Amino acid sequence: MEEKIRTLSKLYAKHFSAQLDTVRLRTGKTTERIKIDHPEAAAVVPFLDEQRILMVRQWRYAIERETLEIPAGKADPGEDLDVCAIRELKEETGYEAEHLLHLFSYYPAIGYSNEIIRIYAASGLRSLPGEQDVDEISRVEVVELSRVQDLILQGLISDGKTVIGISLFLAKQQRGEIPPGFF
Amino acid sequence: MEEKIRTLSKLYAKHFSAQLDTVRLRTGKTTERIKIDHPEAAAVVPFLDEQRILMVRQWRYAIERETLEIPAGKADPGEDLDVCAIRELKEETGYEAEHLLHLFSYYPAIGYSNEIIRIYAASGLRSLPGEQDVDEISRVEVVELSRVQDLILQGLISDGKTVIGISLFLAKQQRGEIPPGFF
Repeated sequence: MEEKIRTLSKLYAKHFSAQLDTVRLRTGKTTERIKIDHPEAAAVVPFLDEQRILMVRQWRYAIERETLEIPAGKADPGEDLDVCAIRELKEETGYEAEHLLHLFSYYPAIGYSNEIIRIYAASGLRSLPGEQDVDEISRVEVVELSRVQDLILQGLISDGKTVIGISLFLAKQQRGEIPPGFF
Repeated sequence: MEEKIRTLSKLYAKHFSAQLDTVRLRTGKTTERIKIDHPEAAAVVPFLDEQRILMVRQWRYAIERETLEIPAGKADPGEDLDVCAIRELKEETGYEAEHLLHLFSYYPAIGYSNEIIRIYAASGLRSLPGEQDVDEISRVEVVELSRVQDLILQGLISDGKTVIGISLFLAKQQRGEIPPGFF
């Protein structure tokens, strides 16, 4: 294991923080680690039907460009992740969902962040006019699932959670692990 | 797009930094964003043969537990990512590789980090006694590829880059996109 010696500095955003720690490695050597203390997050692969999903175009400040991703966001304090998934889907696409299926939970940036993303598939979608968040999302798009897989393999979709959501859904589908009544 | 108004605070680790910025959203509203400025990184799925890969057990400070992952690490300043991949493989497992095949490049934490991870498959492995880094890696393991996929689908491997490396290798293999002479 690695043991914290002390925190050298720390900064706080609205919902999470980053700190720089001096740590002792298991061999006795010391080094510095940045650690992001991040709330849990939920992401959703929202199925309009068996072939088509909803995706969102949004500006990403950290990489200074627009991306095509599945809807996702941080949980509010005390919020269950399935509630968060439904809320983020509604805020980012203006759709609500009847069914949620847990696909996978993972650490996106294990080297410096404790964030865990819980990815769901959603079905039984229904449009709620006027519910979409215009501050963060520039456009909602309907994309064929097979096209998303092509875009991933061509390197044109490069957002980790989107790649994992689609890949794990397809792997589970291949193994017969998506319940027959899901769509 | 989103425009930086100013940086409120910043902290520096040895090879990267985290900063808290006030930004103006495209609708004119302002908010705060944490941004990690991170060097590019490389990860490797190292094949001993067509069925077996090398993985590393290591302590992860950010999540306070040990994980099973593919070898990976940050590029040194000016270092090419294929050179980085070979170096990290050697440091973490004590093996060198004859062939490298680029599988995929992606953003692991697009919401707050500009890190990009370039994942390779490696073959033609050869053990170099005494080359392994004992500070960071606690054990090197040989794991069947099919077992890794099972561990992912059972939720027992939850490191993003490992999930993406294995999933994309299998998807490319299914599509006949792994060169026949690779193994």
